[in-house]
Amino acid sequence: MSKIRIALAGIGKIARDQHIPTIAKSDRFELVAAVTRHQPPEGVPGFTSVAEMMEAVPDIQAISICTPPRGRLKLIREALAHGLDVMIEKPPAGTIAEAARFQPLAEAAGKVLHATWHSREAAGVEPARDWLKGKIIQKVICNWKEDVRVWHPGQEWIWEPGIGVFDPGINALSVLTAILPEPLDLQSAELRVPENREAPIAADLEYRMGDAPVDVAFDFDQKGPQSWDIIVQCAEGELKLSMGASKLAIDGEPVELPEDPEYARLYRHFARLVDARQCDADLTPFRHVADAFLFGSRKQVAAFNW
Amino acid sequence: MSKIRIALAGIGKIARDQHIPTIAKSDRFELVAAVTRHQPPEGVPGFTSVAEMMEAVPDIQAISICTPPRGRLKLIREALAHGLDVMIEKPPAGTIAEAARFQPLAEAAGKVLHATWHSREAAGVEPARDWLKGKIIQKVICNWKEDVRVWHPGQEWIWEPGIGVFDPGINALSVLTAILPEPLDLQSAELRVPENREAPIAADLEYRMGDAPVDVAFDFDQKGPQSWDIIVQCAEGELKLSMGASKLAIDGEPVELPEDPEYARLYRHFARLVDARQCDADLTPFRHVADAFLFGSRKQVAAFNW
Repeated sequence: MSKIRIALAGIGKIARDQHIPTIAKSDRFELVAAVTRHQPPEGVPGFTSVAEMMEAVPDIQAISICTPPRGRLKLIREALAHGLDVMIEKPPAGTIAEAARFQPLAEAAGKVLHATWHSREAAGVEPARDWLKGKIIQKVICNWKEDVRVWHPGQEWIWEPGIGVFDPGINALSVLTAILPEPLDLQSAELRVPENREAPIAADLEYRMGDAPVDVAFDFDQKGPQSWDIIVQCAEGELKLSMGASKLAIDGEPVELPEDPEYARLYRHFARLVDARQCDADLTPFRHVADAFLFGSRKQVAAFNW
Repeated sequence: MSKIRIALAGIGKIARDQHIPTIAKSDRFELVAAVTRHQPPEGVPGFTSVAEMMEAVPDIQAISICTPPRGRLKLIREALAHGLDVMIEKPPAGTIAEAARFQPLAEAAGKVLHATWHSREAAGVEPARDWLKGKIIQKVICNWKEDVRVWHPGQEWIWEPGIGVFDPGINALSVLTAILPEPLDLQSAELRVPENREAPIAADLEYRMGDAPVDVAFDFDQKGPQSWDIIVQCAEGELKLSMGASKLAIDGEPVELPEDPEYARLYRHFARLVDARQCDADLTPFRHVADAFLFGSRKQVAAFNW
């Protein structure tokens, strides 16, 4: 099977850390161009717009978009107009209304849209969902606490009004909504915003799933050990996902999981969608983020500095 | 045709001002019971739950829900479980995720759900939409400015985290999204929050519809003349909706409109949905509200007191 000729848009940290090495190892994709105002990946020509790129390299089939979430509508429209299938990094857009337009636009153009949630591809997610099927869930605890200085060094866009700590938090929400059998209902939310910033640095969210409490804590200012943990207490035992759902334990006993990196699985899934001419654009995690902002109370906390 | 036996849930200001008198004049509905912790409407028995009501008055067919937006999921579930068709006041729920569940639940139960936007039933809305079809829209200006002390006297729920000035503002958004031919894309948002409250008292929202700017201003602290106006500047002339879209003028010339109150039209529409066994639950205006909270910057302003 010939490789899918793919371009990358937005050559920042996530493109360099994940997308470029994953595509390099993939037997289904070949990176042939980039849209970027910065340095293109090594050995690949860079262009400042999709139109310019398609003029120079006309046989591109797909584009993977890693730009910050705001302003993607224009980019996606341009990509679809040039006949490209489209994959987008999380979070999908700056607003729910914008994100909700992508799939109808792709379908109208006869193209594939894949709105990705890389954490859903973590090795523990499928086994966790399978184990939880039919169990009596009593309580869920999610702690997603990391140091923004390590994971988003100097990335000022993360402090623009909006996303903030929900940039990693949406990963937790994408896993929770993938493994739990019923929808989450938000009961209360507190967002903590540094006095010198526009976006929350921490959040406490209380959901219910059926009658079970689901307590979620996000923190972007975590010193020492980082945690990306979900614990599900069931009548039948306790499930724990840790390290961003890459590790799974049942009643404290580690479950053996295949070594299969998230982004390798993500690109394999995109290849399947391209082959099947199907879209996959679940916006549930993003809706939960908007709801936290709509519904939550806000508390001002100490200034944040890099 | 026999009348639809309907109950009201939530006997507050909007029920007394609009729903009760509208149902009293309707030839399609008969008010037979109420779910309320307060005084039921005159001549109608009141109950504290749907279950209790259905036990005492089993032949109710529909319920119209006017409770504050938070906590409706439980109420709607209970109503559907008792076989009732359901109409809900705007805004539909406390969160987008909650609101998105209502129609699937109703469909699964084989019941009708009508998530209403009363301002879309204002007399000028349909004629405005028709006039705008095919016109070249250059600019849209929306001013929705009223005194919360007059329209929501002492209603503390309006200052809970969330909705605030978007309670009237969502009416403007429901009209804008009904009359304009393309979706709105949010460009920037500023929410102004009183230092002693959790919800915004004012908001400035900049959208684009295609290439046309759409400038929206909400204010809850408007002294003197109130305004609920939308102006659409087209290459072919200027359309103005005023008084909450109940008045329409083209190039300054008033257009004659039928005298047909919003809530009379709303209940006629619900009757049509009940007859046709169809749901109508467009969440677009509510998504725009959540997006303003997600995307917007916040500014603290002077304390609000009743």
